[in-house]
Amino acid sequence: MAGGHEVERLIDMMARLPGLGPRSARRAVLTMIRKKSNVMEPLSRAMADVVQNVRECNQCSNITTAEICEICASPKRDQTVLCVVENVADLWAMERTAVFRGRYFVLGGVLSALDGITPEELRIPALSRRVKEENISEVILALNATIDGQTTAHYIADQIEGQGVSITSLAQGVPIGGELDYLDDGTITAALNARKSF
Amino acid sequence: MAGGHEVERLIDMMARLPGLGPRSARRAVLTMIRKKSNVMEPLSRAMADVVQNVRECNQCSNITTAEICEICASPKRDQTVLCVVENVADLWAMERTAVFRGRYFVLGGVLSALDGITPEELRIPALSRRVKEENISEVILALNATIDGQTTAHYIADQIEGQGVSITSLAQGVPIGGELDYLDDGTITAALNARKSF
Repeated sequence: MAGGHEVERLIDMMARLPGLGPRSARRAVLTMIRKKSNVMEPLSRAMADVVQNVRECNQCSNITTAEICEICASPKRDQTVLCVVENVADLWAMERTAVFRGRYFVLGGVLSALDGITPEELRIPALSRRVKEENISEVILALNATIDGQTTAHYIADQIEGQGVSITSLAQGVPIGGELDYLDDGTITAALNARKSF
Repeated sequence: MAGGHEVERLIDMMARLPGLGPRSARRAVLTMIRKKSNVMEPLSRAMADVVQNVRECNQCSNITTAEICEICASPKRDQTVLCVVENVADLWAMERTAVFRGRYFVLGGVLSALDGITPEELRIPALSRRVKEENISEVILALNATIDGQTTAHYIADQIEGQGVSITSLAQGVPIGGELDYLDDGTITAALNARKSF
């Protein structure tokens, strides 16, 4: 491949990002080279900015440019409700709905014996301490409806129950716009078990 | 979306690259933030390197870190055969086969009345001059088998014919491993018309 080692190295790096492969990395890099001053230079600078300025929130592990993220720092957020999510992408998904007005706790993963991810790595003891020390009345376990997600939810519930805090989880059922014919059996079973009067 | 304007700006920029959308840009940026020193910092520096060092070859418009690209500079490449390609990605595709041993001329696009792309922008006059001045015996028009690609090929052929140079194009037919049932009518027609004795 022509173009010098710089270009090959850049393509290799881009290809390792999630959602990109060798082919799309090649296309992206060639586009960037064609638009060097309009695309590539600003992008490189934006990345350097983020490397420099973005860090984890001391309280919830959301990403932020300050010590404490905007959500934890906001006096408008309900201090008594804490929503536990797996990662920052899930936090953003929750925020997009603009329905939840409490604060978050980002685990940064889920328990996994296979990958050797322990409760300490997910800061579950810190979560447990926070629930005890702060005036929290409800912990919402908004973990993914996967096996690992649900295992983690059960582990967390075990750790924090008996502290007078109510522990809830997201409802399971038919997604809005969902067609029964295209849903898996597990979802239909969950929706049927959780049926409510019309 | 939390995380400061730096992160939002970076996601916006990434989302505009070909092959990425808002969702995959978000995932890529979050992965990069998680692996700041291992992924994001080197990537930002690799981009800055390319911005700094990579430019167009003076002769063929391939990308290079020198005045003249490796292919144009190599004494091992046949100086009498010139392969005309639409862009650098196509040049790389040709090079991967390691069959062609001549040199290239990268147009940087195809003629398009709709997009207002003229022969001058594609440096077709420069190509024509080069064919006249250098000792070139064959010009291979390796343009895409699309309408615009073939229109451009015909235009180039018109410009350089009558200079005692043979003008060829890539063969059209059934791709290796191709099944007739899945091929379009145009390809089968071309393959039939160009049939050869077995």
